[in-house]
Amino acid sequence: MPLTRRAIVMAARPQGLPRPADFAIVEQALPALEDGRFLIRHDWLGLPPAARLRMNAEASYTAPQAIGETMHGQAVGEVIASRHDGFPVGTPVLSVHSGWATHSVSTGASVHPIDPALAPPSVWLGALGSSGQTAWVGLVTIGALRAGDTVVVSSAAGAVGSMAAQIARLLGARVVGIAGGAEKCALAVADYGCVAAADHRSPDFAAELAAACGGGVDLYFDNVGGAVRDAVWPLMARDGRVVVCGLISEYNSGFVRGPEWYSLLTKRLTVRGFIMSDHPDQREAFVARVGGWYRDGLIRVREDVVDGLEQAPAAFIRMLQGGNRGKALVQLAPPSSG
Amino acid sequence: MPLTRRAIVMAARPQGLPRPADFAIVEQALPALEDGRFLIRHDWLGLPPAARLRMNAEASYTAPQAIGETMHGQAVGEVIASRHDGFPVGTPVLSVHSGWATHSVSTGASVHPIDPALAPPSVWLGALGSSGQTAWVGLVTIGALRAGDTVVVSSAAGAVGSMAAQIARLLGARVVGIAGGAEKCALAVADYGCVAAADHRSPDFAAELAAACGGGVDLYFDNVGGAVRDAVWPLMARDGRVVVCGLISEYNSGFVRGPEWYSLLTKRLTVRGFIMSDHPDQREAFVARVGGWYRDGLIRVREDVVDGLEQAPAAFIRMLQGGNRGKALVQLAPPSSG
Repeated sequence: MPLTRRAIVMAARPQGLPRPADFAIVEQALPALEDGRFLIRHDWLGLPPAARLRMNAEASYTAPQAIGETMHGQAVGEVIASRHDGFPVGTPVLSVHSGWATHSVSTGASVHPIDPALAPPSVWLGALGSSGQTAWVGLVTIGALRAGDTVVVSSAAGAVGSMAAQIARLLGARVVGIAGGAEKCALAVADYGCVAAADHRSPDFAAELAAACGGGVDLYFDNVGGAVRDAVWPLMARDGRVVVCGLISEYNSGFVRGPEWYSLLTKRLTVRGFIMSDHPDQREAFVARVGGWYRDGLIRVREDVVDGLEQAPAAFIRMLQGGNRGKALVQLAPPSSG
Repeated sequence: MPLTRRAIVMAARPQGLPRPADFAIVEQALPALEDGRFLIRHDWLGLPPAARLRMNAEASYTAPQAIGETMHGQAVGEVIASRHDGFPVGTPVLSVHSGWATHSVSTGASVHPIDPALAPPSVWLGALGSSGQTAWVGLVTIGALRAGDTVVVSSAAGAVGSMAAQIARLLGARVVGIAGGAEKCALAVADYGCVAAADHRSPDFAAELAAACGGGVDLYFDNVGGAVRDAVWPLMARDGRVVVCGLISEYNSGFVRGPEWYSLLTKRLTVRGFIMSDHPDQREAFVARVGGWYRDGLIRVREDVVDGLEQAPAAFIRMLQGGNRGKALVQLAPPSSG
């Protein structure tokens, strides 16, 4: 087994949009394979937008990421050495806290076996992984989605947004997407089940969105914050729910004030922020339901793949600018050992 | 029975703080006492802050109040003529939609018999009426109060706030009050069960509040909005709840943007606006529990009483400026008939 792994660490704390020099590729020692542990070879890495949040000097979901600390993200791969009865060599797995690296040693905490017969490994990072599960938790657990709701999803062509749109539609909602540019808006309608999509770069954005939302928005699944959220706010229906999943428009530029609270009061709105990892008990229901839809061909998956660990920073920076189409993934080069 | 009533109507739509000339006292015809109806003589009127909201040109909880429309509020009094078997002459009642007037004719909708043996009539407008029930619904139904929570209540010496503070304490919370001026802060601690109270007019307000809140705020019961809310916001604990009951600091001055949403996301906050009247099913539990505490001498009641319908506008304007101490009430002159 390898004694070291390659990993991407934060080399400098970014100001605004990260630059390539804010990252470094390093060689890290792997811990010894003690009893009860196993070694995973990572075949795919997911690049989550929230990894940008952890790079800030302020605490986010957790304490700030330290300089020199490995970038956060999930991986799928295979157990290649094991002293753990539950994870024999050859087990295909998803590792939730692997980081951007070629290998990891695990005790089994936050590692889940995956079913390659149901979906190829990369899908367990996106549609059937953190992206899809985030959409599921936000809509069902946090947003209390009801059939017949009018649901607005921002970043509707993104990894989480495209799953939120599809899941909401499959649960009986009428879904309106928001995306940046005509190409992503077309995807939201053609592939992700939106009845309409409004382009937030259009000068007529607010009017187009209002027309698409008709009698008001019952549930807004927000991935972006900022001006897009402000455009949805006055369209909220009485007893509407706003699920705050992400604020990607604010991660690099700094955080802006929320909308007025008068509507919150008079429309009896509920606004909830969440992070999927607080709700691990939802994983089983999510995989059963969305995995079933996937098997039945009802879920459209789009992936934006780069090859090799060294490409991860550039792909991440491109995603933060909206340059990706679908889940941002890194496919790792075939290993030299294992 | 009288054929007319006296009532206070909105004579002009106020800009900012209402002036006396925005109100007029008028004589209105009472409807005929058809089968299934009864006539109530109002003995006490409550002056709710939210009546200011309805005077704005924008829709609030409902369509805007029209010029010439009777001011909104509740009354307690006695049935003095009846063609309704459920409400015989002599029944003491609370009328939820009576308006600021000397009498009303009712079908029984939104009229509740009250128990004068448990509490005097005026208390059914405040501690055991809309103020107390608003506090109950906000804390229990909307805010999911738990024993051991650190709860912050703004306007803690006000009609709703003083009940929210007392109910939260009796349900096992640690309560920190916010009020304007040393006198109200002293009341919040001495009479309403707060462990500490911070004066929002103090130059050290933010620091005093932070010191009083210790490990963070689990539940913020907000009656005021604006700068006071902004001071509480950074003190919210993880998984904290913000209950938006009122925005009295913004009713006259215009509505301001909410705080940044980054904390909402990273602390997984829930923010909910509500109006008590959406939750009539809570009345029974509220009266049973809080009425029991009142009977046992555990609830402090303070009332700010003026005499005569013609005093209502001035008392209302004074309350909007924070000049009242306790529930703002109008005691009506003994009737000339009935």
